Amino acid sequence: MVRPIPAAFVAGAHGEWRIERISPVRGDPLAGAPRLARIEVPGTVPAGVWTLRGTTSNERYLTRAERDALRAVQPPLGRPDSDRAALIPIRKSDAWWDLAQDERRRILEERSRHVSIGLGYLPAIARRLYHCRDLGEPFDFLTWFEYAERDAQRFEDLVGELRSSAEWEYVEREVDLRLAR
Amino acid sequence: MVRPIPAAFVAGAHGEWRIERISPVRGDPLAGAPRLARIEVPGTVPAGVWTLRGTTSNERYLTRAERDALRAVQPPLGRPDSDRAALIPIRKSDAWWDLAQDERRRILEERSRHVSIGLGYLPAIARRLYHCRDLGEPFDFLTWFEYAERDAQRFEDLVGELRSSAEWEYVEREVDLRLAR
Repeated sequence: MVRPIPAAFVAGAHGEWRIERISPVRGDPLAGAPRLARIEVPGTVPAGVWTLRGTTSNERYLTRAERDALRAVQPPLGRPDSDRAALIPIRKSDAWWDLAQDERRRILEERSRHVSIGLGYLPAIARRLYHCRDLGEPFDFLTWFEYAERDAQRFEDLVGELRSSAEWEYVEREVDLRLAR
Repeated sequence: MVRPIPAAFVAGAHGEWRIERISPVRGDPLAGAPRLARIEVPGTVPAGVWTLRGTTSNERYLTRAERDALRAVQPPLGRPDSDRAALIPIRKSDAWWDLAQDERRRILEERSRHVSIGLGYLPAIARRLYHCRDLGEPFDFLTWFEYAERDAQRFEDLVGELRSSAEWEYVEREVDLRLAR
């Protein structure tokens, strides 16, 4: 996982995941489609209603201690009982990106407990973060989550905790896609 | 400068800058060419001997205090008396990218004084950093420098200071292009 992994999310007629709902949380929505394909290391990408691209990258805020704590419990993607998934594209405001590194870190963790909150939902919820701001994409981040149906309420709690944090005041566009296998 | 600015550097027969020399500092070299074009917000890019792409991005390590200190003295690109330039593409090792944020910060500034060293050469030397690791490019960073011929020795000193730092132990590929208008 040290090398960046490029990925494409294609909404359309094909793909492993059935789109159950697409909710615009803030800002412009995304068009509806029956299915979603998550394609890592995409060569040619099939045409779709829309395509979002991103890439895994190095971590931007985690301390060594936080990363060790996360890695000790975070599950892989693709678990057989993960029959639910979510894709949450977000874009943060210019005000966020104009903050210095120490200021963003302070809001993300010391004020909003982003890392600590996420840790509380492991290993139930698997997660992969794709960065896309520097790719010229409409969003800054695409976060992919996988979990079992029995943990669906826990996932709602996780999303609710993050959305009520100080960090989320800097989110100017967010769409929430829920998926089932 | 909050929004990322994509850029392409094209080496070939055309471009504002004459390539005086291309020195492989570490790892594979880059092919020679007579001229270099630096194209920001590239649409179609002219064909060349080689093309390197990158994008400006948010700062990854600077504290607010460091950024304020830099912004107070850093000059713009394109000064009329900046008749010399350098393009220094580097790639860092997997060992660097596998460090946590606090570990990278500690090596970059507390041990290597990267920001403090750069500050000592302002406003003589103008600089713009382009990120390219997440674009799937062969380098991680392209740093562009502009200065007047009278400051050429100061630029050598700057580059020498950085190359002797602990941070540079993580640089596994580096090429040094010097240019004149």
